[in-house]
Amino acid sequence: MIDKILIPLASDFHIHTRQDALMEMVVPRIIEGGVSLCYVMPNLTPPITTTEQALAYRAQLQSLAPNVTFLMSLYLSSELTPEEIKKAKSQGIVGVKSYPRGVTTNSDSGIENYEIYYPVFRAMEEVGMILNLHGEIPSDPEKDICVLNAEEKFLVHLRQLHQDFPKLKIVLEHATTKASVEMVKSLGDTVGCTITIHHLQLIVDDWAGKCHNFCKPVAKFPHDRQALRDIILEGHPRFFLGTDSAPHPAHLKECAQSCAGVFTTPLALPYLATTLDSFGAIDKLRGFACENGKKFYGIKDDESKSHHEITLVKQKLSVPEFYSFGKFSETRQSFVVPFWAGKDLTWKIETRV
Amino acid sequence: MIDKILIPLASDFHIHTRQDALMEMVVPRIIEGGVSLCYVMPNLTPPITTTEQALAYRAQLQSLAPNVTFLMSLYLSSELTPEEIKKAKSQGIVGVKSYPRGVTTNSDSGIENYEIYYPVFRAMEEVGMILNLHGEIPSDPEKDICVLNAEEKFLVHLRQLHQDFPKLKIVLEHATTKASVEMVKSLGDTVGCTITIHHLQLIVDDWAGKCHNFCKPVAKFPHDRQALRDIILEGHPRFFLGTDSAPHPAHLKECAQSCAGVFTTPLALPYLATTLDSFGAIDKLRGFACENGKKFYGIKDDESKSHHEITLVKQKLSVPEFYSFGKFSETRQSFVVPFWAGKDLTWKIETRV
Repeated sequence: MIDKILIPLASDFHIHTRQDALMEMVVPRIIEGGVSLCYVMPNLTPPITTTEQALAYRAQLQSLAPNVTFLMSLYLSSELTPEEIKKAKSQGIVGVKSYPRGVTTNSDSGIENYEIYYPVFRAMEEVGMILNLHGEIPSDPEKDICVLNAEEKFLVHLRQLHQDFPKLKIVLEHATTKASVEMVKSLGDTVGCTITIHHLQLIVDDWAGKCHNFCKPVAKFPHDRQALRDIILEGHPRFFLGTDSAPHPAHLKECAQSCAGVFTTPLALPYLATTLDSFGAIDKLRGFACENGKKFYGIKDDESKSHHEITLVKQKLSVPEFYSFGKFSETRQSFVVPFWAGKDLTWKIETRV
Repeated sequence: MIDKILIPLASDFHIHTRQDALMEMVVPRIIEGGVSLCYVMPNLTPPITTTEQALAYRAQLQSLAPNVTFLMSLYLSSELTPEEIKKAKSQGIVGVKSYPRGVTTNSDSGIENYEIYYPVFRAMEEVGMILNLHGEIPSDPEKDICVLNAEEKFLVHLRQLHQDFPKLKIVLEHATTKASVEMVKSLGDTVGCTITIHHLQLIVDDWAGKCHNFCKPVAKFPHDRQALRDIILEGHPRFFLGTDSAPHPAHLKECAQSCAGVFTTPLALPYLATTLDSFGAIDKLRGFACENGKKFYGIKDDESKSHHEITLVKQKLSVPEFYSFGKFSETRQSFVVPFWAGKDLTWKIETRV
């Protein structure tokens, strides 16, 4: 039985670091969770659409966590030009994130019109930037499309993009279905896939009426969760950790219309080790969380700060009921409820960084 | 275009009338919603398992709503005997409700063991009592069973029960799937089915992160909703209204783990007319809400108080944001948020009863 692991600090290829008081709480906790490199989502208010915005935001993050490497992305929108792509690349921006809504901005038929972005994708392919896809199409009851099959129905677009841009590195973000795992496996080496910690744990029952487990894409059937676990057990090199950790204050979760997102940043590696161990994949932690993603993104070790090592041990660790931030009049506005609040994990970080 | 309907007061064959202060708010609103006959669920605290309990509860309800006919049911459990069935029938109790949990109480394998209740079902068949089924099997990730397919996986049990007790009247409650509609249609005249108002409106997207639309069974795919609408358009006589109206105080909905249930009682007919009209079935309202259920249950008009007529008109009606009840220290403990709170309905009751 493995009860101790020495690994490099991990990489999280999908994280929401937020703004203002919430950012100030979240960002210092990245390294606490055992992560020293992260790929930052651009969906701020307003979204990060220019190189300048991305660099300014990175400076903020860096000052809050000097020991973490922040890889930045731009938000795909109709304003993004091939020229901006070249500029972004020259300034060290790593990729471009596509959200379903961003795609629908310029067409009634939604994601079908990826083609209007083809000049941008071509520039990205040329300069070597990553395309990150939120892989869902908009719900449409007339076509029997809802949150349960929105990801699966997206996959034809992933395949088409890969066919049209075989050298463009594309990441299908936060895969939740067996169909996605099979599609990514079937495609070439330029297509990767992130998997969150919570999607390795949740099925639809777990977010039915339980707002803190509600996220997008929603967790699906048990056989889908099994497919995510199986691809990690297989040690497939194009699947890697992207937590999609997405904190919201409690009053925006425990209400009539909850924000989507699960918060895992402060305990990322303890959650992940506990999860992988539960299905016999603890020996896959290093590849999944420390190696595969960096290899796919082409990140050399001297570019990141993740050459430090940490020790994980199989010991009980209680997840806090909440993390406080800011100063607000109402209590629930001032804290974030983390994933598995109040429950016990079976792994913890022994040496704090 | 139909913009006015004269119909008898309706029947609701599945209602939760609760206890104490909540009951005192809910029960007088039954007739306000245009309903004068209802079939009352026995899942109180403690559950109604004896004739005495049912009669005592009916007396409470009757005193709060003298103009409503309350049909009572018992909670299926291992304590229920064939003798109690005969006694219940002689005292006017109408049926027995089976919940999944009630079934699992006495067996590890859950609903498979309906056979332990066969002596009770035989007595019910003899004396002419109704068996009401909450048609879901317990989730079991190992077998890929979750809230999304728990109803469909139950249907073999419905078919088996009908085969073994062909003269026993069985109602599959609150059907949510195409599979259920097809199964009920395929079975004999002794098998009926209730459909709620909210399941005619909701799909899975509508309860994802929206606690006031969260109910059990959960609303499913658009094609499932369409099947429920289609069977009403067809005017099938064995499908009828059972609202499953299930009020909870707001603080038990807007929280980390929401109670399941949608509250529709105070505006039952305005909701239903608005809903049916939206898919071209307003002419089916009378059959679905006033006739089919009574016919299936074998209720003669002189047994009920539903021979009064009311007029529905196609006019705007705003759903209240909440209904207050009781006196509690915290505000959210003192109100129930109804279905579609704050939205506009397109039909209202013209003549209040």
